[in-house]
Amino acid sequence: MTKLDLATMGTVHGVGLGPGAQDLLSVRADRLVRGARHVAFFRKAGRPGQARTLVEGMLAADVIEYPMEYPVTTEIALSDPGYNAALSPFYETAAAHLADLARAGHDVVVLCEGDPFFYGSFMHLHTRLLGHVPVQVVPAITGMSGAWTATDRPITWGDDVLCVLMATLPEPELARRMADADALVIMKIGRNMPKVRRALEQAGKLARAIVVEFAAMPGQTVTPLVDLSPDHPAPYFSIVVVHGQGRRP
Amino acid sequence: MTKLDLATMGTVHGVGLGPGAQDLLSVRADRLVRGARHVAFFRKAGRPGQARTLVEGMLAADVIEYPMEYPVTTEIALSDPGYNAALSPFYETAAAHLADLARAGHDVVVLCEGDPFFYGSFMHLHTRLLGHVPVQVVPAITGMSGAWTATDRPITWGDDVLCVLMATLPEPELARRMADADALVIMKIGRNMPKVRRALEQAGKLARAIVVEFAAMPGQTVTPLVDLSPDHPAPYFSIVVVHGQGRRP
Repeated sequence: MTKLDLATMGTVHGVGLGPGAQDLLSVRADRLVRGARHVAFFRKAGRPGQARTLVEGMLAADVIEYPMEYPVTTEIALSDPGYNAALSPFYETAAAHLADLARAGHDVVVLCEGDPFFYGSFMHLHTRLLGHVPVQVVPAITGMSGAWTATDRPITWGDDVLCVLMATLPEPELARRMADADALVIMKIGRNMPKVRRALEQAGKLARAIVVEFAAMPGQTVTPLVDLSPDHPAPYFSIVVVHGQGRRP
Repeated sequence: MTKLDLATMGTVHGVGLGPGAQDLLSVRADRLVRGARHVAFFRKAGRPGQARTLVEGMLAADVIEYPMEYPVTTEIALSDPGYNAALSPFYETAAAHLADLARAGHDVVVLCEGDPFFYGSFMHLHTRLLGHVPVQVVPAITGMSGAWTATDRPITWGDDVLCVLMATLPEPELARRMADADALVIMKIGRNMPKVRRALEQAGKLARAIVVEFAAMPGQTVTPLVDLSPDHPAPYFSIVVVHGQGRRP
């Protein structure tokens, strides 16, 4: 591929939308979303899609939408070889469609929850598009920034060590890492909440754990984890934070 | 203090400005900064101040500026009791001034580099203002998001564990934690770069370490750490990242 080819192509923009409020989009993201002729976004089959919902009312009247529906979400365990077997062709197909649009000279805005390069699905498109068509990524406020801001307390002070953990990790590993860090962010909670609670207890940090649901969104709640009933359903958008307690002059 | 008092007061807004580009401010931050009658910002004595420089050209013509000049920066070691002794009254004075403005009914925008609650100086004002005058925090794109976006590669995949480390930590602790995480962000580099390099080597991750200088700013550079000369001066705005290598369908 020559530079000349690239000059005639459109660009695939992976645009981070932030934690969930329209006015927390960056000025750059706001401009790209409102000006887009083509938008693409991931969603679960049969759902409107969180990223698409977030930009409701912002899109141009003549925008062309390309929803990318996950073939599986939680029906297959991550450790099952069938998970990658189902997702890989899905990402291939989506990336090929976006690349076709770019080769035809169209810019495409891929709507991404949070920050695209921080545990985002966009990276699976990015890795397939890079080197084939122009790709630009717009960073964004992470969901975890939205969560710790919702608690109205700083997450880290001084030399605090922050560890970001996925609740899908094995319980002993979670407990060990929770004990070893000053400040914690735990994501991908969902059905793993009972495991997260046990691991925090083993790490001696359960009393300091705060659950933030729907950070920066209308239904935002901030609750000490110990105050949640053990059978409280954790929504998709829940994040657990444990604040650091470092040096503070 | 009664709720009635609060209703007549102005608000102190801790406004995150993001990594260093004006169009990476959030729409909310952009509106607050442009509309501010009073702005406050930290800076080193004799310098314009990074936060103030970032918003150059955005402030109202009649804005009233309140620079808060650190009495010490790196002349005293963090472990020296003199460090806190010098900084504590400085934060008290600054917080008292902001509280006076709010009590007189004025809103104040405190310009904060990065995200205010993520290793930011604003938290030292926040903890002194909370409960006395209304305080609102606007989260922002962190400097580390700016850094990993600059590398044009995702920082975390799948269940990767991300660890954020301050280079001011002791070398053995840095090395141990670097070895134990999948993805790394190392901040507060400056004069600690030789220590960071040795710790990464001990952790077996030196070859994967990328130095980002001035992320999202005009002078942005992205360089493998091994390609930097050992006596390369690390600017204040340098961040080291090591990308995770987790599951990718």
